Amino acid sequence: MKEIRYFYVPDPDSGELPADEAQHAVRVLRLGVGAELVLVDGCGTLYDAVISDAGNHHCRFTITQARPQQPEWQAAIHLALAPTKNMDRVEWFMEKATEIGLDRLSLLDSQFAERHVVKTDRLERVAVAAMKQSHKAWKPTIEPIEPFRHFIARADLPAQRFIAHCYEPAEGDKPFLGDVLRRSEPALVMIGPEGDFSVDEVRAAESAGFRSVSLGTSRLRTETAALVAVHLMRLANR
Amino acid sequence: MKEIRYFYVPDPDSGELPADEAQHAVRVLRLGVGAELVLVDGCGTLYDAVISDAGNHHCRFTITQARPQQPEWQAAIHLALAPTKNMDRVEWFMEKATEIGLDRLSLLDSQFAERHVVKTDRLERVAVAAMKQSHKAWKPTIEPIEPFRHFIARADLPAQRFIAHCYEPAEGDKPFLGDVLRRSEPALVMIGPEGDFSVDEVRAAESAGFRSVSLGTSRLRTETAALVAVHLMRLANR
Repeated sequence: MKEIRYFYVPDPDSGELPADEAQHAVRVLRLGVGAELVLVDGCGTLYDAVISDAGNHHCRFTITQARPQQPEWQAAIHLALAPTKNMDRVEWFMEKATEIGLDRLSLLDSQFAERHVVKTDRLERVAVAAMKQSHKAWKPTIEPIEPFRHFIARADLPAQRFIAHCYEPAEGDKPFLGDVLRRSEPALVMIGPEGDFSVDEVRAAESAGFRSVSLGTSRLRTETAALVAVHLMRLANR
Repeated sequence: MKEIRYFYVPDPDSGELPADEAQHAVRVLRLGVGAELVLVDGCGTLYDAVISDAGNHHCRFTITQARPQQPEWQAAIHLALAPTKNMDRVEWFMEKATEIGLDRLSLLDSQFAERHVVKTDRLERVAVAAMKQSHKAWKPTIEPIEPFRHFIARADLPAQRFIAHCYEPAEGDKPFLGDVLRRSEPALVMIGPEGDFSVDEVRAAESAGFRSVSLGTSRLRTETAALVAVHLMRLANR
């Protein structure tokens, strides 16, 4: 099967590929005037286009057709993550979660985290590459890191929200996320750092309407737990 | 919470840590005579032990208690993978699948694969590290790569076996793995290389009792598809 390569153009009206995409098209793939492109705007639309002008550092195109896409899943999938010390693990998560299905990644500055600063530009590049490679029309939104307590107080969080942690609940038991997720409803799961959330953070989240959940009996690394949570939300959206 | 560190000792009767574990215990962690260890044999038993003799290159121990573990899941989870060109992706899968839950990894020499030779020693090290880090008592078995047609003809494969691929079925439709997996029964899923299995391979597998399945609507990389399949098998074992 012929491999269709997507080019990311956040602003198709510009009629021009972004610099890095232009270099890839012209200098790496050696595409020239008349070559056909498939563009993706990261907001749900693919465009068929033809190269109208190509140089070493620019590539202009003419759009021949806009093809709005149907979402692969209905309800927004939102994951909030306390970043790991090693950013490779967050970048790995970003790639895999984009393939499986993620709408929004929030980054939490959490009490026991070993990392409190994140440059999101590399995560953006990973998300764009994974979106193109997996032929998706939507790019996950990546939010700048924010303090845990600011995040849980936000007014724009979905009603269905969960916090995954390793503590035993005060009373009752902690349900498995997959058993309590409501199908086809927007959902948010918060995943703690290597050292887990603090008890105070868990209490604050529960007061803010987050339900404590387990991700199963296995002991998972932060980025593995995050991917498992994304996959469970994606499964509730089939 | 105090972090419990496991040491891998495939042969606890030896009374001695393997060389790399001994170096880690003595030279990195600076543990000495009298220090308590938790050993794991990778076959379902943890051992409490005390260091009886420690040198730069050896570490002998005395076992104080053997603690056979209950399996986290009941039915064997078996994944057969055509390795990716870049082994980092297989090693990443090995780490994550060990955390989530895998009993056996088979490696397939498949027609469209870009890799036909795999040294499993690195995969073994990744599996051991992930087993210890996720506090599991069982180490996944990693089999040497074998030709696709030899593998599908093996007599020791579970009755419940699937092949995931991207082709449209001749008649009917291809069910989603999660919808057809029978709970708490041994299961095997085969995942193809970047170029997918060949049509001939899919036909041969179906003749050998493998059911064609889909892993959902998302376009997944080989190692992501493999991890999604392992997670679905693990979910059918709760």
